Amino acid sequence: MQQNNLNIEQIVKLIACIPSIGSKSSKRILVHLLKNRTLMKDIAKSLTIASNSMCLCNICFNIDISNPCHICMDEKRDKQIICVVEDLLDLWAFKKIPSYNGVYHVLGGRLSSIDDVGPDNLHLHVLLQRCIKDKVKEVIIATNFTIEGRTTAFYIADMLKENDIKVSLLAHGIPIGGELDYMDEGTLEFALSGRNIY
Amino acid sequence: MQQNNLNIEQIVKLIACIPSIGSKSSKRILVHLLKNRTLMKDIAKSLTIASNSMCLCNICFNIDISNPCHICMDEKRDKQIICVVEDLLDLWAFKKIPSYNGVYHVLGGRLSSIDDVGPDNLHLHVLLQRCIKDKVKEVIIATNFTIEGRTTAFYIADMLKENDIKVSLLAHGIPIGGELDYMDEGTLEFALSGRNIY
Repeated sequence: MQQNNLNIEQIVKLIACIPSIGSKSSKRILVHLLKNRTLMKDIAKSLTIASNSMCLCNICFNIDISNPCHICMDEKRDKQIICVVEDLLDLWAFKKIPSYNGVYHVLGGRLSSIDDVGPDNLHLHVLLQRCIKDKVKEVIIATNFTIEGRTTAFYIADMLKENDIKVSLLAHGIPIGGELDYMDEGTLEFALSGRNIY
Repeated sequence: MQQNNLNIEQIVKLIACIPSIGSKSSKRILVHLLKNRTLMKDIAKSLTIASNSMCLCNICFNIDISNPCHICMDEKRDKQIICVVEDLLDLWAFKKIPSYNGVYHVLGGRLSSIDDVGPDNLHLHVLLQRCIKDKVKEVIIATNFTIEGRTTAFYIADMLKENDIKVSLLAHGIPIGGELDYMDEGTLEFALSGRNIY
């Protein structure tokens, strides 16, 4: 991209390539940035640095500035407990829980016949190898609670159980702050069947 | 910003500084860009170029890579017809109409007592000077059809009329594709009072 060729329409189109940003939002964003040059420069700089330095972790498929990533390199973390997530966003969500002390494994998606994603398209083989090599004590499957997420979870659970690896799934029930009359029947049923004796 | 200091949270925070993008959207955008490095690099590059080269046009206050901007420099445009708009986004909207052949004047906002924007905060004095210097034939006031936009329009109209400059306002009525039963009373009243004899 040369300076001579640059025009507003080009930048608007580029920003609108990001999902959930249409051409109208893209224009609004660009106008805001044109009026806030410092922010514009900072974003440009950080994206440049990120695009040059961020790389995939060979162990857990997290994206970080180092390979292996800072989580896999963290001496304090228990390498024998692996939390399996679909995507980077899920990993970032889990990272907020200080009580979890294990490591992660990013699948890079979920099994989906519609999107033509089969077991070979996810990082499943590497997960199995990793479990065997590190003598993993427990694999916590934390895929989304959707049909595809559940299918993926059961597929992984079966695969690991065949190799005598302990597998657990996240608990399902009423979320914190959840009001019962707003809950769907499925959630209520899970909450009821998974009730704890007091 | 140094490479050593860069982390995901910092970039997420930076992107979330853009209005209408919250921290959740910011994370989603970043993950999309991390998976699409070419797009990430292109956006970073175009923002860098834009932040270094885009400047305010001294004549009409458009933002462009040259000063005066390409619209003011366009020999084919009629410099004696000026369309006055509130903001850059409005100018971009007008630029889509091929039939308009005049130039523009970006006010940089609208009169607003709540936001403490008075006549001195808008590019009004320059507009008047420009009208007198270029012997402008007509000023089309195209501020938004809101209370503040209308106030601004009437203020400018009065200012220009005192100097014997022809002023016109945009027509108001039913938009193309507008269904009558979805129109508010104000719009219907405007459409009725401004009806055209067939």
